[in-house]
Amino acid sequence: MIQVSPFDSGLYQTLLSDTEAGRWLNDQAQIRAMLRVEGELAEAQAEAGLIPAEAASAIAAAAASLVPDPDSLAAGTASAGVPIPALVKALKAALPAEQARWVHFGATSQDIVDTALVLNCAELITLFESRLKAMITALADLADAQRGTLVAGRTRTQQAVPMSFGFKVAQWLSPLLRQLERLEELKPRLLKTQLGGAVGTLAAMGDKADLCGQILARRLGLGCGNNWHTQRDSLVELSGWLGLCTGALGKMSQDWLLMAQTEVGEIRFSNGGASSTMPQKCNPVNAEIMLAMARHNAGLVGQMHQAMLHEHERSGSSWAQEWLLLPQQLMSTAVALKHGLDAMAHIEINPTRMLHNLGAFNGVIYAEAATFELARSMPRDQAASLLKQACSEAMSGDAHLFDLVARHSGVQLDVTQMQQRLLSDGATTAWLDAVLQQARAQQP
Amino acid sequence: MIQVSPFDSGLYQTLLSDTEAGRWLNDQAQIRAMLRVEGELAEAQAEAGLIPAEAASAIAAAAASLVPDPDSLAAGTASAGVPIPALVKALKAALPAEQARWVHFGATSQDIVDTALVLNCAELITLFESRLKAMITALADLADAQRGTLVAGRTRTQQAVPMSFGFKVAQWLSPLLRQLERLEELKPRLLKTQLGGAVGTLAAMGDKADLCGQILARRLGLGCGNNWHTQRDSLVELSGWLGLCTGALGKMSQDWLLMAQTEVGEIRFSNGGASSTMPQKCNPVNAEIMLAMARHNAGLVGQMHQAMLHEHERSGSSWAQEWLLLPQQLMSTAVALKHGLDAMAHIEINPTRMLHNLGAFNGVIYAEAATFELARSMPRDQAASLLKQACSEAMSGDAHLFDLVARHSGVQLDVTQMQQRLLSDGATTAWLDAVLQQARAQQP
Amino acid sequence: MIQVSPFDSGLYQTLLSDTEAGRWLNDQAQIRAMLRVEGELAEAQAEAGLIPAEAASAIAAAAASLVPDPDSLAAGTASAGVPIPALVKALKAALPAEQARWVHFGATSQDIVDTALVLNCAELITLFESRLKAMITALADLADAQRGTLVAGRTRTQQAVPMSFGFKVAQWLSPLLRQLERLEELKPRLLKTQLGGAVGTLAAMGDKADLCGQILARRLGLGCGNNWHTQRDSLVELSGWLGLCTGALGKMSQDWLLMAQTEVGEIRFSNGGASSTMPQKCNPVNAEIMLAMARHNAGLVGQMHQAMLHEHERSGSSWAQEWLLLPQQLMSTAVALKHGLDAMAHIEINPTRMLHNLGAFNGVIYAEAATFELARSMPRDQAASLLKQACSEAMSGDAHLFDLVARHSGVQLDVTQMQQRLLSDGATTAWLDAVLQQARAQQP
Amino acid sequence: MIQVSPFDSGLYQTLLSDTEAGRWLNDQAQIRAMLRVEGELAEAQAEAGLIPAEAASAIAAAAASLVPDPDSLAAGTASAGVPIPALVKALKAALPAEQARWVHFGATSQDIVDTALVLNCAELITLFESRLKAMITALADLADAQRGTLVAGRTRTQQAVPMSFGFKVAQWLSPLLRQLERLEELKPRLLKTQLGGAVGTLAAMGDKADLCGQILARRLGLGCGNNWHTQRDSLVELSGWLGLCTGALGKMSQDWLLMAQTEVGEIRFSNGGASSTMPQKCNPVNAEIMLAMARHNAGLVGQMHQAMLHEHERSGSSWAQEWLLLPQQLMSTAVALKHGLDAMAHIEINPTRMLHNLGAFNGVIYAEAATFELARSMPRDQAASLLKQACSEAMSGDAHLFDLVARHSGVQLDVTQMQQRLLSDGATTAWLDAVLQQARAQQP
Repeated sequence: MIQVSPFDSGLYQTLLSDTEAGRWLNDQAQIRAMLRVEGELAEAQAEAGLIPAEAASAIAAAAASLVPDPDSLAAGTASAGVPIPALVKALKAALPAEQARWVHFGATSQDIVDTALVLNCAELITLFESRLKAMITALADLADAQRGTLVAGRTRTQQAVPMSFGFKVAQWLSPLLRQLERLEELKPRLLKTQLGGAVGTLAAMGDKADLCGQILARRLGLGCGNNWHTQRDSLVELSGWLGLCTGALGKMSQDWLLMAQTEVGEIRFSNGGASSTMPQKCNPVNAEIMLAMARHNAGLVGQMHQAMLHEHERSGSSWAQEWLLLPQQLMSTAVALKHGLDAMAHIEINPTRMLHNLGAFNGVIYAEAATFELARSMPRDQAASLLKQACSEAMSGDAHLFDLVARHSGVQLDVTQMQQRLLSDGATTAWLDAVLQQARAQQP
Repeated sequence: MIQVSPFDSGLYQTLLSDTEAGRWLNDQAQIRAMLRVEGELAEAQAEAGLIPAEAASAIAAAAASLVPDPDSLAAGTASAGVPIPALVKALKAALPAEQARWVHFGATSQDIVDTALVLNCAELITLFESRLKAMITALADLADAQRGTLVAGRTRTQQAVPMSFGFKVAQWLSPLLRQLERLEELKPRLLKTQLGGAVGTLAAMGDKADLCGQILARRLGLGCGNNWHTQRDSLVELSGWLGLCTGALGKMSQDWLLMAQTEVGEIRFSNGGASSTMPQKCNPVNAEIMLAMARHNAGLVGQMHQAMLHEHERSGSSWAQEWLLLPQQLMSTAVALKHGLDAMAHIEINPTRMLHNLGAFNGVIYAEAATFELARSMPRDQAASLLKQACSEAMSGDAHLFDLVARHSGVQLDVTQMQQRLLSDGATTAWLDAVLQQARAQQP
Repeated sequence: MIQVSPFDSGLYQTLLSDTEAGRWLNDQAQIRAMLRVEGELAEAQAEAGLIPAEAASAIAAAAASLVPDPDSLAAGTASAGVPIPALVKALKAALPAEQARWVHFGATSQDIVDTALVLNCAELITLFESRLKAMITALADLADAQRGTLVAGRTRTQQAVPMSFGFKVAQWLSPLLRQLERLEELKPRLLKTQLGGAVGTLAAMGDKADLCGQILARRLGLGCGNNWHTQRDSLVELSGWLGLCTGALGKMSQDWLLMAQTEVGEIRFSNGGASSTMPQKCNPVNAEIMLAMARHNAGLVGQMHQAMLHEHERSGSSWAQEWLLLPQQLMSTAVALKHGLDAMAHIEINPTRMLHNLGAFNGVIYAEAATFELARSMPRDQAASLLKQACSEAMSGDAHLFDLVARHSGVQLDVTQMQQRLLSDGATTAWLDAVLQQARAQQP
Repeated sequence: MIQVSPFDSGLYQTLLSDTEAGRWLNDQAQIRAMLRVEGELAEAQAEAGLIPAEAASAIAAAAASLVPDPDSLAAGTASAGVPIPALVKALKAALPAEQARWVHFGATSQDIVDTALVLNCAELITLFESRLKAMITALADLADAQRGTLVAGRTRTQQAVPMSFGFKVAQWLSPLLRQLERLEELKPRLLKTQLGGAVGTLAAMGDKADLCGQILARRLGLGCGNNWHTQRDSLVELSGWLGLCTGALGKMSQDWLLMAQTEVGEIRFSNGGASSTMPQKCNPVNAEIMLAMARHNAGLVGQMHQAMLHEHERSGSSWAQEWLLLPQQLMSTAVALKHGLDAMAHIEINPTRMLHNLGAFNGVIYAEAATFELARSMPRDQAASLLKQACSEAMSGDAHLFDLVARHSGVQLDVTQMQQRLLSDGATTAWLDAVLQQARAQQP
């Protein structure tokens, strides 16, 4: 074991990996799931009357208790290009010959590898769901708590108009709600057995073929997938879903990085990385890793689409590509969610700084709102032209926009009242409430 | 106009582009949709009581009749980083000042660009659906017609066991059925208006904000999307769907390329590219382009995931990235489907060659099936060991496997009967029928 | 023509495309270069004694004057999967039969397409070189002018220690110098003819084969490339070089976007996009597009590597992939350079704001420098511990670090002197001068 | 440790990983190199007169003997977002306080991590060079041995014209020669120290800064890189080089997969994967993995280009992205080379089958050559038209092309003589010899 990937490194295990997800991705988890499929396959075949019941029980028992050293299967895996022949050999070796001969009967290696992958994916999906819901709850709480906090809305790097910070949080949250929706839709397509035999026709199981497949699915608690050896669309759909997860988290983490900049200072993470020689440093490590996961996963999605192009009834190379990609995507998503939750536990909001930042350019950020306000007491065009003049003076001089407006029009605008409007006006309340309602509906 | 992309080239317009899809992707289509959104926005705002009804009618009428030269908007687009300011200016110029002032009222450029994109996507999706269904029908017909044709199942470049060619066709078809399913699921998330104003709160529309959004959606025949300026997940979901389309078609086209190889010769395309000096050439151009589209689109999916990371309330750079990616994906998918349908109209199946190819290695490909056959009249282990011996002799010598089996066991295997079994045995019939039934259900 | 790509759009021509580069990428440029290769090939073959001299002259003359409408070649391009057969047909049609028969003699379509591509790449490389050198000059001037401007060095989103802004500029500049170096290295591998005939052996040219290739190269002013039909490494190397160009520019543009943020305000672009309702806006459009080009190009590099995998002696699909990728890369690079130069012409540096930003946290950013300063008059450990205490007080209160240091130690640090040291100390001067020297050496 | 990546798995260690490369990529190798840099830095600083010589000796000795458990550094790595602070702490703990204080003096974490990476890259590059040269030798031997073997040249999946198989091998070989050339060029840009301190100015080293950097470089046997914290171009150049390696190997392996197909059978790997139930199987596992590495690496190159966009003076997220990418690329390249060499040791060429495959279509593949042959004894146009007629008859009937030619013209073409010509004619000999000469020059 080499630690090419930080996901697998001792050094980086806390920063760039996730123990809980690792339990379903490591060698042991793969081998355990493969053996489980071999065991249940035998039982299913016995149930269908294809192989002797005693053989099936013995195989299932042996599969349940066998814990082969991954190293011992390495040579066989290399020679066959897939671990199953070596694993089947080890399983057979643990059984009397009479029963051993029914191991893996009529199946192909890919049936086992793919179904085992799906079993472990099911566990990981449960983990993702639970973390996504926790993230949704944390964000909903934050959005609700901060609905009355004013922050600069920023477009194209520039302050645009003020807005509710809670509303901004709701924009981070919304895609996660859709991710739960998408997950429900893809589950029936993904969580399916694969059982097709040598070329997908399950010919070696004769007239019991279809029946065996159905029983196996029932026993494993999966849908019955028939054969999808070279139909990788649902795995690639999962890949896209994982990319959307880290992408949504990544957009949020990028906003965090921007808001945590020294010069912005609107948020801060109490667990930020410190420096001995630079006491002001508070490096937003969680957010950095979330962003790295988003970009890493994005590329992997594209590669999974490349790997869809299996040739004929099995592609050794496209399949190996998947092995290099999907586990990384599953781990990236777990890591991003872990850091997201950690960040939410350590985020500190600085509403004073948010308000302060709105003060750049002498209140010009309120120009649009001021125009609307002024238009209540004078023709709209006149209001607009007056504001334009006042803004120009505010930006080039020291006077505040509202003082200039007062000077030119006699109307004294009330900044507190205007901020109050900006916090709730327009669609802010309606849309924020709608997101929160959806979020609350996800909670137990 | 420059033709950097073959999609836009006169030279490559028939090979690498698609006129029908182009109608919803060109400058005119973009401008037309943007103007439609501006017009309907005005009408929606009038309906909500936000702007004068006469102004709205005038704006809608002007928007419907304005056909600006794209070149005339280029400078404004460059200066603002987005085409809307220049377009709004042109629209205002076509109206009296009193009405012009209500153009684009309270909206932001991205509201218009994104909603216009969705409108054109809706048209393209209709096109994709129709082509997908035609492709499904063509493949279902082929699968049904060829269920009785025997072909070598091939795994990892090697002949494995014989199978029904119709069954193989059904594997190409199945993912397309799931694509229709996925499309139904993503439509409500994708086909939505975007109306959020400067930073997404629609503040400038005051207490009419939410209502305006709803009326606009109704008028455009879209779902009401509120603001998703920086929530790109549903666009990226579309990107993934497009990648899955070309991926599924690409896997099939790669099989076509392999089957059309001179040395395999199991299929041939009557519209294949010819050579004057090499009369035997029949280049499978359709399949080549389908494969190129699959690989191209795969990369673009990954890039769309990269482009999800919009900063704050609007990202000029991530948004521009999308403009470079999604239209290419939409076109790639249209091109792949066009070539797929063209290929299906010109594919020629050569069952004789398929049968001939099974003859490699003196019938050894029937080894597994022969073992099962022999096991009817002798113990399974004995059958297996006899076959092993016969195979070894067949592969090193000139004798056919069945003759060697007969020589060693006295059992004369009937090749025709065995082929018949291989065509229908196992799950072939059940699974093929299930796919065909689903396919037929998609037809009008 | 459809405008799938903004590179080819009338609307986006100024924002997202480049006219000068377009001249070497459009249909006409491709056709012109292909015809030039056909003409020079004939002349080379005549010079080698392979075809009659009169035929060669006639072919070259016809090739030089023929300007076929790209649309007229579309059907032939689609049928053959490559434009050459249709183009050769058009060229032959312009000649008497006796001479027409020597057109494209012994060559294959790919010889023409690839060599024509190289010819146009050579022109684009000249353009890139010239723009790179202009960019280097502009950056060197800026670095030199700003060597005495203090700016916050920022790591992981946080202010770290102050540094010379000119030194920061030199970091943007350095990779561009290496790009010129890399370009010199790759040119001899890239700027080569391709002449291999049907399968690369140039068999049809008999014993004149090698000679013809050498003469053709000489006539076209290229290296003699023999056959590289399926050896795409030098094209992919170019792809990587293009990605490095936009990547280096993209890093710089990302810094620009960060420095131009409203809350940072250290730079500003006088050509920034404005907003009628938000007067404070100055959208850094150039920088946004540069960043978009960097991310777009990055993905395309990965796809070009995917496209390397040509099968046997020619791959229709991998080759078509290239056509979709490399022109986009060439254009992306031109666009990024164009915007880079435009930005340099409009960048406004705000040293006051830079200095102001250093004031965050009451001078704590000078902690490291202050420790070194203090260590001149007291033991280093004592200095460090004193600073630690002072920093803690400065960050939690209102007092400036230097006042606290004075209060605790009696030593009054001189901020101006310290800034002066930070501007020139360490390796700043040596390394900045070294970069400038290299940059100046590139100038004419 | 989790085994997310097959590179790090016990199960897949022989199939998908490489022990020799792993020695420079694992946690221990990283830690060892980091400690070496810390040790040599201290010695360099002592040499420059910046820190006490005894402290430097003690630090170097401690760094050389310290072997920290990676797990013990995990928490510190997570908290800081980089392993160095925890490692420095461990190193300091192994020293008396008076000497400990000079550990890592004036350096930043990235100085150590990047320089350590370069040190390990240097070792890996030596490994790659050695394997590339072995591969070149093996291919040169094969090309030379097979120069007299005729094989079908194939374009766009179709047989085109016959060619020398040795010549085909030379096309696989050529890009590897250029890879050695590129490696020499990139080495001086890549194999450089990084020493810049907090923000790249090395301010904390005062007037010894530049000198320290130069001494450190000399001591480590690297070039002096000054600071390139955010100038990742040379790492990305390496990434591209690695992608070119696996791409060139991948093209070859794809040809191998195609030639090893059952129906083609022109090559075979004696170490191919076997199947118990399908005796004819000989799965080309080496080639499959090589192809998988090529496609995997291709995507990673694109991601490395994405990771170039570091912000300001250090980017936590872009840097973490690199950590996830570059080691995978280094390993992918080692794995591809390993399998390539293994494949070359087991490849079996079947010239009989090559000749047999040329027989498809009754000798029509010789059409072009026959035209040239016939043109020796009759006008070229007449020869062409005669061949066209003969080809048409050959393809639709049973007669061989040469018999038809004889029937129509009286000229009896000699197939052996023609094959002889095709083996050496055109540029075959000249270009094959040129490649071999270059290859031989690489050998020791």
